[in-house]
Amino acid sequence: MSATALFVDSAAIENQLAAARQAIATRDTISRVVLTACGGSYAVMQPIEYLFGTKGVRLEATALNAAEFTSRASSRVDADTLVLLCSHSGTTPETVEAARHARERGALTVAFTFDPASPLAEAAEHVVAYQHGEGKSEAHVGPALLLRLAAGILDDREQAGIATAVDDAVAQLPSLVPAAREAHAAAADAWGYASRREPLIYTMAAGSNFGSAYSFAICLLQEMQWVHSAAIHAGEYFHGPFEITEEDVPFIALLGLDETRAVEQRAVDFVTKHSKRVLVLDAQEFGLDVVAPEVRGVFAHLLFNIVLRAYADALADHRGHPLSVRRYMWRMEY
Amino acid sequence: MSATALFVDSAAIENQLAAARQAIATRDTISRVVLTACGGSYAVMQPIEYLFGTKGVRLEATALNAAEFTSRASSRVDADTLVLLCSHSGTTPETVEAARHARERGALTVAFTFDPASPLAEAAEHVVAYQHGEGKSEAHVGPALLLRLAAGILDDREQAGIATAVDDAVAQLPSLVPAAREAHAAAADAWGYASRREPLIYTMAAGSNFGSAYSFAICLLQEMQWVHSAAIHAGEYFHGPFEITEEDVPFIALLGLDETRAVEQRAVDFVTKHSKRVLVLDAQEFGLDVVAPEVRGVFAHLLFNIVLRAYADALADHRGHPLSVRRYMWRMEY
Repeated sequence: MSATALFVDSAAIENQLAAARQAIATRDTISRVVLTACGGSYAVMQPIEYLFGTKGVRLEATALNAAEFTSRASSRVDADTLVLLCSHSGTTPETVEAARHARERGALTVAFTFDPASPLAEAAEHVVAYQHGEGKSEAHVGPALLLRLAAGILDDREQAGIATAVDDAVAQLPSLVPAAREAHAAAADAWGYASRREPLIYTMAAGSNFGSAYSFAICLLQEMQWVHSAAIHAGEYFHGPFEITEEDVPFIALLGLDETRAVEQRAVDFVTKHSKRVLVLDAQEFGLDVVAPEVRGVFAHLLFNIVLRAYADALADHRGHPLSVRRYMWRMEY
Repeated sequence: MSATALFVDSAAIENQLAAARQAIATRDTISRVVLTACGGSYAVMQPIEYLFGTKGVRLEATALNAAEFTSRASSRVDADTLVLLCSHSGTTPETVEAARHARERGALTVAFTFDPASPLAEAAEHVVAYQHGEGKSEAHVGPALLLRLAAGILDDREQAGIATAVDDAVAQLPSLVPAAREAHAAAADAWGYASRREPLIYTMAAGSNFGSAYSFAICLLQEMQWVHSAAIHAGEYFHGPFEITEEDVPFIALLGLDETRAVEQRAVDFVTKHSKRVLVLDAQEFGLDVVAPEVRGVFAHLLFNIVLRAYADALADHRGHPLSVRRYMWRMEY
């Protein structure tokens, strides 16, 4: 599939988002939300689980890998369940299967995908077809739209009063994103050069930023750079992983703006004391003072994803290993 | 604290377990279960989340690191919530704090710990003080008692009809455990020798066995051997991590007996084709035909923990690095 401008226009996306939100609001028996996908798209679901887990009052939310979700065959997936799914191409077999499984059980299904004609889009009842590639609007990418839908659900069902603030924040992404990239360009290049021979780089975060750390570890490092990695939960760090910290073990540690910042700060304080190769990325430097304080925490991961991508681009450049290279994916059946 | 025989006797433990189960059954408004702990004790909670996630009908269950749990300060933690906690020593500050936090909000709290006089035991409303160290009964260790309580809750609240089968299975641990250790002794020694110079070993599993893989990665390898590691979810493997697979990259891959076995099998098939250093541990070889089929899946993790420990012991032996050595834990404040 071409990466250029084959996307749904912004007005049509707004209509899809409104239709999905309306369908969810209308089915007033919904008491559970399942967030399911694979890999990088599963990582996108994790901050949404956090949002429900902190702002939800009646709604229950669970994030699961799509193969795990379908295998579990939980009887709690029924007409009172909303299942949100995401697959970039819309062709991920496990995610398509999860949509079918959920729909057969009567759940309301909403798929996020780049391709509105994909198998996932066809399997789900509702689709939100986001933009990607050249010419896309940063306000109409998948993770931003998913956050907006989740905030809308929390407003409609829980009177959370956050949807407008999230909408306003997302509307600022077209200026926040290039600014964050620009602010980190030199630091990313220096880090990419300094890290070019590292065989392993750990990532660390908590709360709504854990998904960003996870995505960087499994997609950017393991998949696209063939660099060993693991995403370490900052709260778990002190209960095992911190013992592998040495002055030459590299970490990327995130400091977000949500309720878990103190958990992340404690890990940052320790790891920067015992390793000389720690990159700390602090969302306080992302210019988010233009975002309403009550949603700043759950919004920051969108900028972490952008900034982390800049570091991955620089690393790929200095390693002479393009992010697009694969040895198994697209090359064989598995 | 001494590791020898300072434990509560089995009859007293049975009374504690029955009292906790009764208290939970009595509070019939409970609709949510939170499973919270840190590190190895958090890993013990993960198969319990799976048990609720597959056998639960009305009850919701979530597993969270204790620092994350307390930070989230979810308003969904209230008198209708059961919070199960675990800390081996009962002194883990984040877990003690989580117990206080939950109790202040009116939740029913049950703590699993080795020490019935520990801060965690005092902070929680109910305690199940398990055995450990020399002379312990394998049927009265923490993970087995936690599984029995969870099955009891599912019987009392959901008519799951599994508690007797789980009780019977746990009663067989005193013979299953030494048999599993014995069956794997030679293979563990050979693997420990062959792996003695590996700087990194991945673990992989899904479903109710993911906690065993996670525990091995963060506690046995990272913490106790200073060997790099990550627990890879078998369903996530194909969406990123599989690209770091090469013929000389070592993995330990688990094959369990629960609903996710096919997910694990697919990962095993791929990883054994592309790496020459894969240890596959299959629960079909654990002699679990003496366990009722309907609980065999959620029971197998108890044997994975035992068998994996044998491999860790052998690795420690051949590396000349005792599992008890730490560079930070017990040596400094953090």
